[in-house]
Amino acid sequence: MTHIHKIDGLVAAPFTPMHPDGSLNLDLIPAYAQFLEQNEVKGAFVGGSTGEGVSLSFTEKTELLRAWGQVEAPSLQKIMLVGGTSLAESCELAKLAAENHYDAVAVLAPFYFKPTSATVLADFCIAVGEAAPEVGVYFYHIPALTGVSVSMLAFLEAIDGRLPNFRGIKYTHNDLMEYRQCLLFADRKYDLLWGWDEIFLAAMAMGARGAVGSTFNYAAPVYHELMRAFDAGDLDRARAMQDQSIAIVRLLGKYGGIATGKAYMRAVGLDCGAFRSPVQNMSAERYTEFLEDLERIQFN
Amino acid sequence: MTHIHKIDGLVAAPFTPMHPDGSLNLDLIPAYAQFLEQNEVKGAFVGGSTGEGVSLSFTEKTELLRAWGQVEAPSLQKIMLVGGTSLAESCELAKLAAENHYDAVAVLAPFYFKPTSATVLADFCIAVGEAAPEVGVYFYHIPALTGVSVSMLAFLEAIDGRLPNFRGIKYTHNDLMEYRQCLLFADRKYDLLWGWDEIFLAAMAMGARGAVGSTFNYAAPVYHELMRAFDAGDLDRARAMQDQSIAIVRLLGKYGGIATGKAYMRAVGLDCGAFRSPVQNMSAERYTEFLEDLERIQFN
Amino acid sequence: MTHIHKIDGLVAAPFTPMHPDGSLNLDLIPAYAQFLEQNEVKGAFVGGSTGEGVSLSFTEKTELLRAWGQVEAPSLQKIMLVGGTSLAESCELAKLAAENHYDAVAVLAPFYFKPTSATVLADFCIAVGEAAPEVGVYFYHIPALTGVSVSMLAFLEAIDGRLPNFRGIKYTHNDLMEYRQCLLFADRKYDLLWGWDEIFLAAMAMGARGAVGSTFNYAAPVYHELMRAFDAGDLDRARAMQDQSIAIVRLLGKYGGIATGKAYMRAVGLDCGAFRSPVQNMSAERYTEFLEDLERIQFN
Amino acid sequence: MTHIHKIDGLVAAPFTPMHPDGSLNLDLIPAYAQFLEQNEVKGAFVGGSTGEGVSLSFTEKTELLRAWGQVEAPSLQKIMLVGGTSLAESCELAKLAAENHYDAVAVLAPFYFKPTSATVLADFCIAVGEAAPEVGVYFYHIPALTGVSVSMLAFLEAIDGRLPNFRGIKYTHNDLMEYRQCLLFADRKYDLLWGWDEIFLAAMAMGARGAVGSTFNYAAPVYHELMRAFDAGDLDRARAMQDQSIAIVRLLGKYGGIATGKAYMRAVGLDCGAFRSPVQNMSAERYTEFLEDLERIQFN
Repeated sequence: MTHIHKIDGLVAAPFTPMHPDGSLNLDLIPAYAQFLEQNEVKGAFVGGSTGEGVSLSFTEKTELLRAWGQVEAPSLQKIMLVGGTSLAESCELAKLAAENHYDAVAVLAPFYFKPTSATVLADFCIAVGEAAPEVGVYFYHIPALTGVSVSMLAFLEAIDGRLPNFRGIKYTHNDLMEYRQCLLFADRKYDLLWGWDEIFLAAMAMGARGAVGSTFNYAAPVYHELMRAFDAGDLDRARAMQDQSIAIVRLLGKYGGIATGKAYMRAVGLDCGAFRSPVQNMSAERYTEFLEDLERIQFN
Repeated sequence: MTHIHKIDGLVAAPFTPMHPDGSLNLDLIPAYAQFLEQNEVKGAFVGGSTGEGVSLSFTEKTELLRAWGQVEAPSLQKIMLVGGTSLAESCELAKLAAENHYDAVAVLAPFYFKPTSATVLADFCIAVGEAAPEVGVYFYHIPALTGVSVSMLAFLEAIDGRLPNFRGIKYTHNDLMEYRQCLLFADRKYDLLWGWDEIFLAAMAMGARGAVGSTFNYAAPVYHELMRAFDAGDLDRARAMQDQSIAIVRLLGKYGGIATGKAYMRAVGLDCGAFRSPVQNMSAERYTEFLEDLERIQFN
Repeated sequence: MTHIHKIDGLVAAPFTPMHPDGSLNLDLIPAYAQFLEQNEVKGAFVGGSTGEGVSLSFTEKTELLRAWGQVEAPSLQKIMLVGGTSLAESCELAKLAAENHYDAVAVLAPFYFKPTSATVLADFCIAVGEAAPEVGVYFYHIPALTGVSVSMLAFLEAIDGRLPNFRGIKYTHNDLMEYRQCLLFADRKYDLLWGWDEIFLAAMAMGARGAVGSTFNYAAPVYHELMRAFDAGDLDRARAMQDQSIAIVRLLGKYGGIATGKAYMRAVGLDCGAFRSPVQNMSAERYTEFLEDLERIQFN
Repeated sequence: MTHIHKIDGLVAAPFTPMHPDGSLNLDLIPAYAQFLEQNEVKGAFVGGSTGEGVSLSFTEKTELLRAWGQVEAPSLQKIMLVGGTSLAESCELAKLAAENHYDAVAVLAPFYFKPTSATVLADFCIAVGEAAPEVGVYFYHIPALTGVSVSMLAFLEAIDGRLPNFRGIKYTHNDLMEYRQCLLFADRKYDLLWGWDEIFLAAMAMGARGAVGSTFNYAAPVYHELMRAFDAGDLDRARAMQDQSIAIVRLLGKYGGIATGKAYMRAVGLDCGAFRSPVQNMSAERYTEFLEDLERIQFN
């Protein structure tokens, strides 16, 4: 077995830029990538939940994939979410990601017909991974959205040794006991990327080193400072940073959820447009109120 | 307002025929349509849950749509499930359904990002329906698979008067109080197709006249007899037919779920191949056991 | 095996009368029983959900049990809900019910530590039933409140033949396929009392003859007319009665839930006081609005 | 406002000792208390989930309360779980706890009729607390068992300033963002006792200082070492202790859940008998296997 690459640091899950008419605004992507690099982000997780992959047409997904693939961004690991409910499309996207020199792809649990066991889920991921052996494969665990609650420890047992390019899990769930066990699985073999920004400090205490998140798009410095403080043993400082992260995340809740992220992007100068239906966007009046809240929490 | 067409009778949700290698076997569709017509089925609900719409690629969906569109089957209402998580693809499929002379399309609640209110859901359906004003539009309510539990009464209130080609709901849920209220909504304006075959008798008592189901593919005569007996006031006979339906459905459970339906199809002489991953198919040994069970329940 | 008594008709689940200070108003019970008998109700299900059994102290439960036990009401089957989370108290109440000449007791699935299988649940019920072999035993299935979703068919298999005084299930759930299978179990051996008033017509179509409900306290005539019409083959009339029942139940929802039932009782002249915390009661202003709604739906 | 006492350290939730016939074995309690004190445990949370409070009769609860109340154990905070579904009994137990010199009582969310808002829940807790103003009051948040998912932040807002003897929350849930916010609420006013032993390290990183747990009964030294290492900045050591805790907790899962805790107690020399129905106990053969597993994980 070759050593598995593990990401130490922050992977942002970019928003997909849209024009006012709702079509893709791919021209923004080079500036987006540069912005992430300037913020010392280590990777881009393209077409994920934050990136509205499920709301794009297949054709749009391939365009988005190519646009990020062509960006010159040497410090970014590029990961494409290729998973969905159709294995056929997932495989096709995985091949395309390989052709476009992505470092890895990510696979969701199919979320209409749901896998009934860890083995069924592993088989699905393996089929995708075998379609593109040149790229790494992450499983993207997000039961709150997929409704699939397969044990990740059982999943690792089911996939271990069967897919050479399997890298690990993007773990967007709050079971830190399971997370810890996955981290230790097979002598720490796999990469376990943490996916709940608002409790990253808790995950670091349990051993997390890498993370994928949406707030890393616009608040990476907060998390970098959190990591530095934690590594330096300065818990008070780390907690203060986590508290700032929580303040940021609370505004997501206050303003209606995931679409608020694009309001943050607009506030930091990268206007990515609106989310597509069925996600709701905030009104212009609410945006003004939102900006006031940003001042209140000293977001800048 | 023009009068809304209401279906009185059974609509089958066809299985999508596959070759042994997993590719579409569209050549079987003419025989499939003929089989349904011979069984006095009134419609085909194409690409639904039973038809594995979510497991097909977008291109395959368009091929499936065209294949059913071209079939000469004058007694069948043709309904295409165009819904999914991408509004863009749903609209494109709806247009294609109109071009291919479908009677109606059906829209699912988006099931990754979930509509947070009846209005959001109605807006999504309206956007699809406006893309193809020539065809009727059904909302396909199946919260057990979509995880979307919006009140259907609130949904009808939210969509009523806003989409001229809206026809009603394919109601695959077990809340018969809500079903009854939807049926009576706006002076019985909308078509409420019942979607739980195993308790169709209960729904008829509450006023159901039309139904969409998977077991109508291979057991339509049982339900026709149920309906005749019910209409004739012969409850004992109607219950006996419902009991036969329950016996059929219990075998679905015993043999692992939805894929068992294709085993039934094979048993009645229309081999539609296997279900795609992540749905599990029964082994050859289990199929032998299944055939014995069919004899035991006197399925023929 | 002796023949199991099956109830044909309506069993009301009485509200527990309270004084304005929240203490038990047991003096109202004789009038309450007379009211039920005048309405041709066939039984009283004492201390159930409607009767706030869980909100009473153990001592109060024994007082309530005795008060109903002493009532002269020859046409009423008396059933006491003895179940809860403590097997010891359930057994003690069951013995007391026997001493007080109840016809039967009912057992809930323990709802804090939840039975992990049908066998565990059956064992719990059997332990209660063996404590009072003179009275019949019903299992009260209400997963929406207990959170226990054990298959009732598996439960019948687990208890069948092990408890001579076991009578059947008060089935407050909406799985009519399972209900039908339980009804047919062991050659229709057990009594399956239906527990969702608002779709009783659907259950009758599936074979229900007896029912336990809260709206039978104040609206029994509606259901009697429903049953007569159904038995006479007059579905239109039966549906009209079910629609009236639904109108009644919708007001429960509109005015905040179960406590609204006591507002109905007050409206029919039997003031049972308020529900205890944590159930919320309507304000005086809301009660006025409620009375207007009663007129609107022609409740009398 | 008087300063609220906050517990720094471990509170064990004792098992309730039973004789082989299932009756209470209260004679064991003095030795039990001594064992906890020897292990430097700071408190006893009596009659909680671990203590099977819900499975006891009311009379037994009062006996258990008195037995722990009479124990001479100066280093132990005594907390009695008085909550349940009956407010009347909760108040009665709270008074009895005050008479027996407990430091505090704890209230569960009523778990049959469930509070529909934070205010309703706060009202319930306040009613209990006002019955015994001499003792502190904790709310015991354990949504996995009660099914009540009221926001704890909203709950603190609803109760703050209304119950002078309110102390805080025993937080047995895995939402560390909410936990952190509760900890900071009103300038760190309340005591937030952590209740998931297996991820205590994560909670410490988020600021936890006190905890209530079942594994502290038999494995307190592991957690003391965890706390010492964490406070000394030795994360590797702290994680090793958490891993040992996880190994212990995994055996709970392997051997069927909560009843396994009494097997641990037997292994450390305090035989507390078996759990009551509906909780399942392990067989003698399984106990032998369990002891082998204890050796494997080096539990001693």
